[in-house]
Amino acid sequence: MKIRIYYEDTDAGGIVYHTNYIKYCERARSELFFSKGLEPTDGDASGFVVRHMDANFLSTAKLGDMVEVSTVLIKKKKASLVLKQTVTHIDNQKKIFEMDVTLVFVRNGKPSAIPEIFSDILK
Amino acid sequence: MKIRIYYEDTDAGGIVYHTNYIKYCERARSELFFSKGLEPTDGDASGFVVRHMDANFLSTAKLGDMVEVSTVLIKKKKASLVLKQTVTHIDNQKKIFEMDVTLVFVRNGKPSAIPEIFSDILK
Amino acid sequence: MKIRIYYEDTDAGGIVYHTNYIKYCERARSELFFSKGLEPTDGDASGFVVRHMDANFLSTAKLGDMVEVSTVLIKKKKASLVLKQTVTHIDNQKKIFEMDVTLVFVRNGKPSAIPEIFSDILK
Amino acid sequence: MKIRIYYEDTDAGGIVYHTNYIKYCERARSELFFSKGLEPTDGDASGFVVRHMDANFLSTAKLGDMVEVSTVLIKKKKASLVLKQTVTHIDNQKKIFEMDVTLVFVRNGKPSAIPEIFSDILK
Repeated sequence: MKIRIYYEDTDAGGIVYHTNYIKYCERARSELFFSKGLEPTDGDASGFVVRHMDANFLSTAKLGDMVEVSTVLIKKKKASLVLKQTVTHIDNQKKIFEMDVTLVFVRNGKPSAIPEIFSDILK
Repeated sequence: MKIRIYYEDTDAGGIVYHTNYIKYCERARSELFFSKGLEPTDGDASGFVVRHMDANFLSTAKLGDMVEVSTVLIKKKKASLVLKQTVTHIDNQKKIFEMDVTLVFVRNGKPSAIPEIFSDILK
Repeated sequence: MKIRIYYEDTDAGGIVYHTNYIKYCERARSELFFSKGLEPTDGDASGFVVRHMDANFLSTAKLGDMVEVSTVLIKKKKASLVLKQTVTHIDNQKKIFEMDVTLVFVRNGKPSAIPEIFSDILK
Repeated sequence: MKIRIYYEDTDAGGIVYHTNYIKYCERARSELFFSKGLEPTDGDASGFVVRHMDANFLSTAKLGDMVEVSTVLIKKKKASLVLKQTVTHIDNQKKIFEMDVTLVFVRNGKPSAIPEIFSDILK
């Protein structure tokens, strides 16, 4: 997943506002579903929620840069999973941001087994 | 309604990203309802939507500035209304942004009479 | 310019937050420069600023939708130009948002002739 | 620091978009400086940058809610510090979000001793 840095992504410090890397990671997770015509839910009252995030800010990106988000499954349980997501400069392959994010599948507000229909996506 | 300019509001140009003034105006409209314990709807499938916007960008605000949004009703019809909203520097009273915004009350996707319960707010 | 609608673009109304269409138009304007390896400035203290905006909100987009931004030059003066920008659903070609936006080229805070180097982009 | 949840803060899930809690924490850090007429820098090429973040998403907030951000210094070194920031519902004091965030003071791109002038703020 490739992302261009626009004005809206930057702040007065001249670089990307820190929380936006976390947004790019969410875009990449959602795109896994959207690109296959799916949504990250199997009905109205279900979906993945972010429970925990351990994030390192390693470098910065600036206006006009192209960055790439990679997503790797590093742990999978019945109702939750942990992904390692990395944002990298496309030009020089320098790592900008990296996080381990724990997602829980929730149905009617409670943790629930991740549906089978998502098994392809989670490979 | 007073608003502080934070990093998230600015861009690499060192000033507030232009669309954010429009967000501040929306915050001010919603606050009219929230501050009285109301929501800008009288049920799930109804609410105000923005239909038209005529906006002038007159000056700029920067990180740490305090700005103020004022809202004046300039026209009211059965299902719609026009507001003049202005964003001003609190320090020097300089006008930064001004727009006439047309809102339509919509119920089940169709224009519908603005409910009586909002008559106080619209004065 | 094609844009996917992600969670960050939507609001509790279930559709795209109204100001985000204006952001998409800015992305499209910037991409005209970035895609040619240029920036929308010919030096630190110069650049295009939005002066006026006349916008119509015609329909809505929702999570997962793909929309397209088109940009047409409709007027050009020495230091300013007017663009018509339209956001359209890719699936059904329905128009969602349309605005005429006036941009002024500013150098050291004052309107200034648009540099020759941008003449290609403005065609 | 008290924050109202507006439409722009929410997403199609009907609740606050997850990264916005991290923005609220940044607002609270900046407000510590702005409220005393300071900026979080002692000159152009210096400032605090986020290096690491360990965050737990414990509950959610929705449109119109009022939340509060509290900030506590839990570790201080020469060039860095760790803060514990918590976002809480004002109505019921329920904890929504909590993170330990490591900030490094950077001058000309390199870690540098935190200036004395900030010692008051860091108490």
